[in-house]
Amino acid sequence: MSKLQSATDLPDKYLSALASANLQPLWPSLRTLISHGAPARSSIPMHWNYPQVRELLIQAGDLTPIEKAERRVLVLCNPGLGIDNLQATPSIYIGLQLILPGEDAPNHRHSPSAIRLIVEGTGGFTTVEGERLPMEPGDLILTPSGLWHEHGHTGSEPVIWMDALDLPLIYYLETSQAQEAPLQHAPIRPDSSQTKFRRAGLLPYSQLHDRNPYPMLRYPWKEAREALTELAGATDRDALVQLAYVNPITGEECLPILGISALMLRPGESADLGRRTCSAVTHVIEGIGSSEIDDNAFNWNPRDITVIPPHASCTLHNQSSSKPAFLLMVDDAPLHRKLGFYREYR
Amino acid sequence: MSKLQSATDLPDKYLSALASANLQPLWPSLRTLISHGAPARSSIPMHWNYPQVRELLIQAGDLTPIEKAERRVLVLCNPGLGIDNLQATPSIYIGLQLILPGEDAPNHRHSPSAIRLIVEGTGGFTTVEGERLPMEPGDLILTPSGLWHEHGHTGSEPVIWMDALDLPLIYYLETSQAQEAPLQHAPIRPDSSQTKFRRAGLLPYSQLHDRNPYPMLRYPWKEAREALTELAGATDRDALVQLAYVNPITGEECLPILGISALMLRPGESADLGRRTCSAVTHVIEGIGSSEIDDNAFNWNPRDITVIPPHASCTLHNQSSSKPAFLLMVDDAPLHRKLGFYREYR
Amino acid sequence: MSKLQSATDLPDKYLSALASANLQPLWPSLRTLISHGAPARSSIPMHWNYPQVRELLIQAGDLTPIEKAERRVLVLCNPGLGIDNLQATPSIYIGLQLILPGEDAPNHRHSPSAIRLIVEGTGGFTTVEGERLPMEPGDLILTPSGLWHEHGHTGSEPVIWMDALDLPLIYYLETSQAQEAPLQHAPIRPDSSQTKFRRAGLLPYSQLHDRNPYPMLRYPWKEAREALTELAGATDRDALVQLAYVNPITGEECLPILGISALMLRPGESADLGRRTCSAVTHVIEGIGSSEIDDNAFNWNPRDITVIPPHASCTLHNQSSSKPAFLLMVDDAPLHRKLGFYREYR
Amino acid sequence: MSKLQSATDLPDKYLSALASANLQPLWPSLRTLISHGAPARSSIPMHWNYPQVRELLIQAGDLTPIEKAERRVLVLCNPGLGIDNLQATPSIYIGLQLILPGEDAPNHRHSPSAIRLIVEGTGGFTTVEGERLPMEPGDLILTPSGLWHEHGHTGSEPVIWMDALDLPLIYYLETSQAQEAPLQHAPIRPDSSQTKFRRAGLLPYSQLHDRNPYPMLRYPWKEAREALTELAGATDRDALVQLAYVNPITGEECLPILGISALMLRPGESADLGRRTCSAVTHVIEGIGSSEIDDNAFNWNPRDITVIPPHASCTLHNQSSSKPAFLLMVDDAPLHRKLGFYREYR
Repeated sequence: MSKLQSATDLPDKYLSALASANLQPLWPSLRTLISHGAPARSSIPMHWNYPQVRELLIQAGDLTPIEKAERRVLVLCNPGLGIDNLQATPSIYIGLQLILPGEDAPNHRHSPSAIRLIVEGTGGFTTVEGERLPMEPGDLILTPSGLWHEHGHTGSEPVIWMDALDLPLIYYLETSQAQEAPLQHAPIRPDSSQTKFRRAGLLPYSQLHDRNPYPMLRYPWKEAREALTELAGATDRDALVQLAYVNPITGEECLPILGISALMLRPGESADLGRRTCSAVTHVIEGIGSSEIDDNAFNWNPRDITVIPPHASCTLHNQSSSKPAFLLMVDDAPLHRKLGFYREYR
Repeated sequence: MSKLQSATDLPDKYLSALASANLQPLWPSLRTLISHGAPARSSIPMHWNYPQVRELLIQAGDLTPIEKAERRVLVLCNPGLGIDNLQATPSIYIGLQLILPGEDAPNHRHSPSAIRLIVEGTGGFTTVEGERLPMEPGDLILTPSGLWHEHGHTGSEPVIWMDALDLPLIYYLETSQAQEAPLQHAPIRPDSSQTKFRRAGLLPYSQLHDRNPYPMLRYPWKEAREALTELAGATDRDALVQLAYVNPITGEECLPILGISALMLRPGESADLGRRTCSAVTHVIEGIGSSEIDDNAFNWNPRDITVIPPHASCTLHNQSSSKPAFLLMVDDAPLHRKLGFYREYR
Repeated sequence: MSKLQSATDLPDKYLSALASANLQPLWPSLRTLISHGAPARSSIPMHWNYPQVRELLIQAGDLTPIEKAERRVLVLCNPGLGIDNLQATPSIYIGLQLILPGEDAPNHRHSPSAIRLIVEGTGGFTTVEGERLPMEPGDLILTPSGLWHEHGHTGSEPVIWMDALDLPLIYYLETSQAQEAPLQHAPIRPDSSQTKFRRAGLLPYSQLHDRNPYPMLRYPWKEAREALTELAGATDRDALVQLAYVNPITGEECLPILGISALMLRPGESADLGRRTCSAVTHVIEGIGSSEIDDNAFNWNPRDITVIPPHASCTLHNQSSSKPAFLLMVDDAPLHRKLGFYREYR
Repeated sequence: MSKLQSATDLPDKYLSALASANLQPLWPSLRTLISHGAPARSSIPMHWNYPQVRELLIQAGDLTPIEKAERRVLVLCNPGLGIDNLQATPSIYIGLQLILPGEDAPNHRHSPSAIRLIVEGTGGFTTVEGERLPMEPGDLILTPSGLWHEHGHTGSEPVIWMDALDLPLIYYLETSQAQEAPLQHAPIRPDSSQTKFRRAGLLPYSQLHDRNPYPMLRYPWKEAREALTELAGATDRDALVQLAYVNPITGEECLPILGISALMLRPGESADLGRRTCSAVTHVIEGIGSSEIDDNAFNWNPRDITVIPPHASCTLHNQSSSKPAFLLMVDDAPLHRKLGFYREYR
């Protein structure tokens, strides 16, 4: 039991004088705010099965014309943080977005940064600052803070993608804003990942000392999968096969707050990720397996989504003895690193 | 009126299926989360008169022995953010702390970073990682994330200081932790600001390529005041006379999230700070004046504390025609800069 | 005519007193040392036809067994700098090295940094710090300062490569050293360009914040050629199609002093490189064309080598109207950039 | 004896074919260029007694009117490098410059970077980019690459300063240039070291993220001496008391190629500097002592100048048992660090 005085030990008159002066005594809540053991944590480990979410999302398509929805998105909410707060973890927003053939969105930009990870369907595309980016399942598209973007769908089946944003943090800091562009569509340039930024170690000379924070906006899954497979061959059995998605000009993580990486679990492999100060969300691109997160265990199948809260332990298992599994991970490690409190421990 | 569909347009059955799957439709709250005009803001401009807070703080000394309080602090709470949340702005905590002669605090450390700005009284000291730092009015002491610190008071009158912490953000990210040390006091080294780091442009050779993020822990007011006065003589009348408190090895701001600076207003001077994405708190070290913050105007006297919310306009006036005024400012500009969304505008 | 006093205007007795004190008057040579027009330049534009050099190099193979030569290299010497000084430009050494089937070199390392650009022949390999790097024509291999390396030849024909080193500068600074390893060969790891560093924007997660200056040691020509071809399609007709060879972790140039890049000249294209403070050497990988360097014009064929002195103007022409030309360029731009005097001008 | 073939083992006809093609065989000179033991070194330890140089310099004042000399400088030449090459070490030029009352120099700039260390006399001043910098004995003034500067002398006695430049390297790289300004004198701003940059840890807010490489141009000796004395009190007996002269905005060394530092030897202290890859020159500001450099020993008095060649061992002794000694050191460590081959060893 804490030796600290509780607020109710203080005279009522004193407490109301404090309240009317917009003051609070610190000592009754000190140990709650700054824990002497593990940090206070509201967010909890979570798991969503894709088929269940998908069914509800398709219903949204029936119930809600795009004109009335603007964005037809179901947000995955961590109940530990309050289901109305639209947080998967304290700083990460995760939504599943549906667009139907012919639907589009006008050019706009916003202060939060976002990624789109294509989950199913072909024929969608996103155009960022005039660069037209095809969307194939597994592809990752950046729509960073302040960059104009729009999207469309020229295919014949539903396209679903996972949105991840740093919106909770930006909203918390009271600096969340958006802007719509005049109606005309931006001119079209091809996807830089196929022209300017192909091979590791080769940069367009003119960009050698460029500090463009977002020179490359699409990370095709086909290429990431191939790179993971080659990396696996050069990686010890007890080390993680993991690729970070970075700015090819600087080697820095591709977004300022969110970190993106892809993991390969070799057949039968178990990977202990340890504990980290930051939170993370995984999405299954390929394979079946399970995740142990603190005292929870979740089985996963393709397209499922799992939340790893801050400071939680996490072990991933590939349950197939013959096939690899591939996961995409979104975390807020870049934020923690920039602020100086990133830490890994057991 | 928004064209967006409200949540109540959706069938109850659908809504309850969503809720039981921990999902929320985005579209009813999209425009709230990502505003198309100014960002949604809960924090409001605030002002505290020091004498009023001081009186309540001295009462706390009478009502609460230090053994029961651990820290005798009154927290300045922005009512726009909910008075129970102990936030002056979304990311900044401000408290006024009282220690009486002979009181001390044992060695401890925590994940939030803090500053102490001495408001009144002499004879207090803080020891950080074994470096003993005297505390005179106006002095600024750093107790950064993870560094062991303790304090004591060998004088004969109350000592009061202002604490500023990045605690709200760290708590929000679920990574707020503290630790107490075994009882023995740390060995004593002298204040580096008087030995290793004196003159601008001169670094101990051994630290030339050191990346120690916190090599200097005390910024004496006497020196900052003198530096401001000399800077004023070389600064145009329409430019701010403002000094940033930085790491002398790297020139980077002295803490990872909070920015510290000191401002001098020349006699009769008005200074328009414009609008910034970040929030700030000012403390009057010397002088009388007023602050216009959006539509609010506050008169200030020495030791008063004022809150400038994110995106607010702010103009400062020195109401004396013969004497300078000096303010210390705490903001979260370093956080905004690191995350890439720092912006100044009119 | 300079108004400066010449040394001969000074009394002999004074001059000899200076000399015996190891002193020189500055004024007679001031305008020579620090020119008031274009910088004093000794190096001159040069061109070597490959067949001529090759013939002499093959003769060296006949005349000189590898045991007696240690390295069978002909050095391309800029006559403006004195043919005995082994400089192609003030800071760049260029040699052509021959190894015959079965010849090898033991493990060694040196303070200068080097590249090997494979000119002809297959079956050669270089092993750097235990990483075995195949050598195909056009491939670029790094053997940076301080890294252990050895080579061998398992093929059946002569292998010839171009060495480029920063040796002249290192020797000038009196810090040129080498070391031989004990005889055993290093263990074999595969070429990182095919495992860890494949696609732009994807980094092994463990190397995200690694500062290894030389993580990737081979730049296969096949991949660079393909990347240039794709870049050409996204590059305006009047802009250079040029790729810098960089450290994939940091985006910094791949060696500390020498810069490596590859240029593609589209059919019929003329490219004006302007004037630069730094010097450069070009090697033709594919195509025919000409280079105008100040008042000199050189026609080139595959494998030819051309020197562009500091501050010289340079225009390159692809003389084919149907085929692209490809050049590899070695310069000392990284040195000039680090020292702060890099400049481009007309 | 080397197993390498000497050039004279090769047929004359072959050697002349090589020469006419501007080629040289590497193997006869390989071991000279890249030594397998200590690096080949031409520069030697040197020492100049100030009174001897001063007498010859004063004579130059008599023999040479400033109109005919432009700069009245005696250059300290390392005989190991050839006395005509004006090198104290491979990359460092050292001169002693005399100006007489009323003499001045017009506004000019050059590609080499220079410092001026005032040796004797008062009333001199240098103006750099319009900033007027007084020159008192021991003061250090920067005239960096590309910055306009001029000087004058309003006092009544000779002023002598020591120039140190990176001229040998810049000349070697064929990029040494100067330019004279139109005749009007630049407007006058006061010395930034007394206005904008006073105390360590305090930066003008507007320069927080400025990358100006040369924001502060004068390092007054009075302040450096005081800082050394305070540092000495906080430095263990067996550690060097040494301050680096840095850019106060970034903490980087104050010039790109040359490093400047000040050393204090406490009474009776001996300081072993070890061996370094770089070269250095010391100037005695105060005190008497001796330097052992490899196998040489030099006694020194105030204003004497000593050369420490690359890779040489060096031990400094303060021969007074009651008074401190103070030395200014110029080296090319920044160059070596930037190029990646800086190393300290025994």
